[in-house]
Amino acid sequence: MATTGRSEEGDHPQPMEQRGEFTVLERKVMHDRFGMQLIGDRIMTSDGQEGEQFWINFPRQAVLVFPLDREGNIYLNREYTYATAECKLEAAGGTPEADETFEAAALREVREELGIEVDELRKINIYQSITSRVNNTTHVYLARVATVGEATPATGEYTRLEKMPFLEALELVRNGVINTADVAAAIWHINDILSAEEKVET
Amino acid sequence: MATTGRSEEGDHPQPMEQRGEFTVLERKVMHDRFGMQLIGDRIMTSDGQEGEQFWINFPRQAVLVFPLDREGNIYLNREYTYATAECKLEAAGGTPEADETFEAAALREVREELGIEVDELRKINIYQSITSRVNNTTHVYLARVATVGEATPATGEYTRLEKMPFLEALELVRNGVINTADVAAAIWHINDILSAEEKVET
Repeated sequence: MATTGRSEEGDHPQPMEQRGEFTVLERKVMHDRFGMQLIGDRIMTSDGQEGEQFWINFPRQAVLVFPLDREGNIYLNREYTYATAECKLEAAGGTPEADETFEAAALREVREELGIEVDELRKINIYQSITSRVNNTTHVYLARVATVGEATPATGEYTRLEKMPFLEALELVRNGVINTADVAAAIWHINDILSAEEKVET
Repeated sequence: MATTGRSEEGDHPQPMEQRGEFTVLERKVMHDRFGMQLIGDRIMTSDGQEGEQFWINFPRQAVLVFPLDREGNIYLNREYTYATAECKLEAAGGTPEADETFEAAALREVREELGIEVDELRKINIYQSITSRVNNTTHVYLARVATVGEATPATGEYTRLEKMPFLEALELVRNGVINTADVAAAIWHINDILSAEEKVET
């Protein structure tokens, strides 16, 4: 992406980026802490109207992991979600550290948050959320539980493993108890995968 | 929620809110434009460590509407999503205007964005997204298409109706073309509802 600059011929700032019908005339990163940026764009629409767009950027894409064991249980993560001020049923996940692949981050996050080792990572989807105002991307993995140990969450991170039959988790999505959108979408998708596999087996 | 204040006995500020194990010592609304706030909290953990939390608040809860017609088609919304800089398959929706109910907003948004009149609104779920960093709530409705007219989107809002057989939309969720998390979760949920209704009918 080109930065804003002035042309050699005059004092008209050069557009820095075209976003759909919006020409970005100027961009300011207004806030940048803990992996979340607030960005303010001064824009011009295709019919020449000037305006502003404010949006949130998560520069690092995240992972979300759904471990299943051979007995048909899913391993979810009960955690305190600060922005919604609730103790919610979520899934293990987070963002990769420097030079870490998404797969390595997935393995590390389930180990740290749930205390389990998984293998057979299988990427099932990529989700985005609140797409008009937020740029946030999450890579979703299905995994097989190898061994169950003890969780070692990062300081200040409240997490607790919740193991339950997969169909019970699906019912919690259906009745709205699990209502974080990417977690809900992933559990529906996993149900679709498991149903298809059952059909092949029978 | 109480505001931060000073006790009568001394100069220790009173905590303004308890969020899980976090005591909020001070809160600043750092940005507040177009229905989106950046909030900075100075916090103390239960073991006495001071720190900060930055989170995004969408004070108005939103609606998302999925109209179906009697021929089994779903009416989605192709729109330019500024933050992700894409022309994505989403659903009609938005936030209620002052004194507007969620149901009234749902009817208005499908009329404005898709140019259709719906009835038989049925609330199927409430979703949240990026719950640790963002407070955003969306009420999801299934609706029946009554009449198809002409869209009247708000200025600067690029939207276009995309009508397709429901099972085609489900396939686009399955293969990741539709990947906005609440839209994907809702389409899976609608599939579950339609499948259950089919079973009852046969």
